[in-house]
Amino acid sequence: MPPRRTVAMGSDSDDSDEFIMRCLSCEEDYDGDDAGTCKECYQEANEAEEELRLEIRELNAKLSFLALPSPLLNPSTADLVLLPADEPSAAPVPAHKNILSPPWVLRSESTARREQSVTRSPVFKAMLENDMTESRSGTIKISDVSYDTLRAFVDYLYTAEAHLDNQMACNLLALGEKYQVEHLKTYCEKYLIAKMNWDKAIANYAFAYQYNCKELLHTALAVILENMDCLTQNEYYAELVDSHPHLVVEIYETYLVRQPNTAGAFNAQGLCRWN
Amino acid sequence: MPPRRTVAMGSDSDDSDEFIMRCLSCEEDYDGDDAGTCKECYQEANEAEEELRLEIRELNAKLSFLALPSPLLNPSTADLVLLPADEPSAAPVPAHKNILSPPWVLRSESTARREQSVTRSPVFKAMLENDMTESRSGTIKISDVSYDTLRAFVDYLYTAEAHLDNQMACNLLALGEKYQVEHLKTYCEKYLIAKMNWDKAIANYAFAYQYNCKELLHTALAVILENMDCLTQNEYYAELVDSHPHLVVEIYETYLVRQPNTAGAFNAQGLCRWN
Repeated sequence: MPPRRTVAMGSDSDDSDEFIMRCLSCEEDYDGDDAGTCKECYQEANEAEEELRLEIRELNAKLSFLALPSPLLNPSTADLVLLPADEPSAAPVPAHKNILSPPWVLRSESTARREQSVTRSPVFKAMLENDMTESRSGTIKISDVSYDTLRAFVDYLYTAEAHLDNQMACNLLALGEKYQVEHLKTYCEKYLIAKMNWDKAIANYAFAYQYNCKELLHTALAVILENMDCLTQNEYYAELVDSHPHLVVEIYETYLVRQPNTAGAFNAQGLCRWN
Repeated sequence: MPPRRTVAMGSDSDDSDEFIMRCLSCEEDYDGDDAGTCKECYQEANEAEEELRLEIRELNAKLSFLALPSPLLNPSTADLVLLPADEPSAAPVPAHKNILSPPWVLRSESTARREQSVTRSPVFKAMLENDMTESRSGTIKISDVSYDTLRAFVDYLYTAEAHLDNQMACNLLALGEKYQVEHLKTYCEKYLIAKMNWDKAIANYAFAYQYNCKELLHTALAVILENMDCLTQNEYYAELVDSHPHLVVEIYETYLVRQPNTAGAFNAQGLCRWN
């Protein structure tokens, strides 16, 4: 739509003399002060967005092609079982050596880069490729894990998906750290960040420190700093003081370094470690 | 930047009385006639694009996690070999039953949907799950295929990637059709469409018909129809007349139905089958 010009009567050079245009996207009228882009850029942005959506559809189709079903759906071809060491009566979780530790040989620099992307777990790889007990027996015992978590962990190695709640995200992240499954760690960390609130902030802060999750740690700390007035009332506060007093000290130091009246002194002492 | 108003001297209600704005995207000046979107929509579009790019990064990370290396890199864990039946001296191509025919059992409607996405090849699945010769011997012989194509085909089942040229795209598409690997068929079809030109149009048209590739067929036909004046000079024309005369008839019928002076008569006879 061409722009309309509204001219106030009797004031032909007045400020009320303005052009009204219609936005090609929201189809609402706007004036020059609210102008965004020219028509050409709008059309280019539309085409770029359509290309990105097409790329996403193609990537999703590729993922559907590459994802494997859980080995629990039919364990007959499994050549490996995983056992929760602390639940001797639990059923074994079936798996395949070639999925947990994909085969490869180093051939060139490009293959070396590829290795990084295809090694789902360097720990399983070392267990299964070298002549270790696990490789010979076809059994991997995993301690400090429930059957449900172990099953979800193995499923993730086939599907890159997991049904998470807060507890499962923490359990799987811990396994991801232990077996160096970086993709799973990131997946769980994102879930915990998305579900972060004041009730969970202190527990997540300690957890993030323990499992070396930088993004989660920063998010938890930000929530804590927004709630300093009720920090000591949080149900996990006393526990944190007992278990990780240095983390509590970090909270106070970071808080104070951000206060205008104390920041200079703290910075001068180089006390702020997190920022 | 706020809009500037340019007023032509002595013509205060003239058409040259116009507002000039600066596009927030390309940073060029534009006037009201070239206005695209309001500022709010521009900002929203920017955020939406950033989210799409983030989604693409996450999907690519997931793909890197799920892609498996070629089984040729280390054949020691293979429980299956594929042989090009027409090249008895060629080396066998190693593979894994659980990759070519992922295990699953039907459990629910949602599992049924999942089956569709995880069955890389329903043909291999039938061969390997039922008690057929291939399953018992661990050997699948494939006719009408070279070692290089077979190797690329197996690699694709692990990585969802292939190094294509025109010939390899045709060879792999044919194997995709034979073994019902739909994702590979689409992958090759897209390549052939992207590389389409007049020299390839007739050969691609016949190929697309033979392997039931609708998009490729339409693209090839469109290129042919744009070049009707030199159709009979194309090096593949005579060959097509010999091998698929009905396809040549289709070309002429489609061409004529699009001509204003003959369209009515052809449509009345219901002759157009492609549109």
